[in-house]
Amino acid sequence: MILTVTLNTALDLTYRVPELVPHASHRVDEVTERPGGKGLNVARVLTALGHESVVTGFAGGRTGAVLRELLAPLAPVDALVPVAGSTRRTIAVVDAATGDTTQLNEPGPQITAAEWEAFLTAYEPLLRQADAVALCGSLPPGVPVGAYADLVRRARAAGVPVLLDTSGEPLRRGLAARPDLIKPNADELARLTGSREPLRAARDARRRGAHAVVASLGPEGLVAVTPDGTWQATPPSPVRGNPTGAGDSAVAALLSSLVENLPWPSRLTRAVALSAATVLAPVAGEFDAGAYEALLPQVRVESLPA
Amino acid sequence: MILTVTLNTALDLTYRVPELVPHASHRVDEVTERPGGKGLNVARVLTALGHESVVTGFAGGRTGAVLRELLAPLAPVDALVPVAGSTRRTIAVVDAATGDTTQLNEPGPQITAAEWEAFLTAYEPLLRQADAVALCGSLPPGVPVGAYADLVRRARAAGVPVLLDTSGEPLRRGLAARPDLIKPNADELARLTGSREPLRAARDARRRGAHAVVASLGPEGLVAVTPDGTWQATPPSPVRGNPTGAGDSAVAALLSSLVENLPWPSRLTRAVALSAATVLAPVAGEFDAGAYEALLPQVRVESLPA
Repeated sequence: MILTVTLNTALDLTYRVPELVPHASHRVDEVTERPGGKGLNVARVLTALGHESVVTGFAGGRTGAVLRELLAPLAPVDALVPVAGSTRRTIAVVDAATGDTTQLNEPGPQITAAEWEAFLTAYEPLLRQADAVALCGSLPPGVPVGAYADLVRRARAAGVPVLLDTSGEPLRRGLAARPDLIKPNADELARLTGSREPLRAARDARRRGAHAVVASLGPEGLVAVTPDGTWQATPPSPVRGNPTGAGDSAVAALLSSLVENLPWPSRLTRAVALSAATVLAPVAGEFDAGAYEALLPQVRVESLPA
Repeated sequence: MILTVTLNTALDLTYRVPELVPHASHRVDEVTERPGGKGLNVARVLTALGHESVVTGFAGGRTGAVLRELLAPLAPVDALVPVAGSTRRTIAVVDAATGDTTQLNEPGPQITAAEWEAFLTAYEPLLRQADAVALCGSLPPGVPVGAYADLVRRARAAGVPVLLDTSGEPLRRGLAARPDLIKPNADELARLTGSREPLRAARDARRRGAHAVVASLGPEGLVAVTPDGTWQATPPSPVRGNPTGAGDSAVAALLSSLVENLPWPSRLTRAVALSAATVLAPVAGEFDAGAYEALLPQVRVESLPA
């Protein structure tokens, strides 16, 4: 099975309004509620790709109870650790006419030192059953900023390949523990390295500790800097739609193809096709299976000089 | 006791953000949760004024459970009727720098015919114990648009003074049942009567069925058209601050002073002072008790020709 860690899970609400106007009052036409947080999204895509997945992290309060209730009928196995604080809500306000989205993210529950210890105790046996692990998203208040470095080290000690998908200081610290793979987007990479040139920034990120760096370039695909080579993977044409969840789909593609021992060009092909099929899907965070199958043979992977 | 009816109760969330920018992502700095809906706000102010209050209406789902949990330690008595659907959330997004607020209101649960009947069954014995009743806010989906007309008629049949505070078609229909008092603001009055001249519009609204009309004019105070006379009541100077809840405070002032058998000028003085003290309070919907006491002797009430 593939383990995904989401320390700051979320109850994701989507509000559809005609148009968001600051300082006005809006009647919400449609409300949807989903269990969320990057690792939960990754796990859902993994199960759609035929992999067993287990989700861990924290859940608490009434919002945590709703999240677990919504997760229960889905395929990923719930190994979330209960906490006293309340799981955060995130609200995506979608303008009905254009599909443009305004995002409001609560900060998340305060995690105590005892709760963090309880998580570490739960993490170890889960790791021992895992073929790979993904560490996903922001840290809730109270979790040490070096948390991901600790979780990366434990995965490496257990011999489990580890992907780190976060940003800012948790990414910077996590890199030092030498994760197998990071998947920053261009903004995250620029914040980490100071360079807005993706290939150069990805090489720099690799020097900082990641064994491999797959940088997402939005509609233009991915660049990968790995011990086996450097590649650029591009979709047949730039894809327009709702990019929510495209990064999580790329993580699921990279993890599943890693576990399947595919060569890098195949991993990148899957990641680009699955991201594009997620952007094309009408529901944010889902992927269009037909588009995915159709895109797979059309992704172009080009080897670049090291 | 004073009964307040809130058919579309709400779990009111307030999100503080640095500044709301459409189509951007925001980290919410501060989240507060309150039991809400106009009638619940009115009841809280009534208890602060020393009156017993009972709240009824609908509550359901996880959000309804949270609402009742937050209501339990407060003074108003919970006589809410359970429903299968979920109580709506409302989200007030406050720009930290300016205090400007963007409002997102979920529509509310679908109410079945059986649930509406259950409400009517609960309403009758509550009415018989009430010294006055306030019917507050919007109707959730499924409640007949003539609901307030029905509730006004039942109150009048029971000999209980009834205040109707709603807008649009529910107000138009409710008026025909001859409520003792309505408290529209200038916009609601204009929509009802087609006139933006408040005194003229208030007189027109009275002809449509209300025994008395108190129209709120925002920072300029109130005009009242009643069987006993016509008055304008103004604060000593226009008040700046957060107007959220000022209308609910005015309703509580009018109801409490009606039950206390105060003459109209005293009722209007209380309503203006309490509204202004609500605008001045740092927390939306609370009132500043010191400001209220200080404002009371400063409100000017002027008798106008009928």
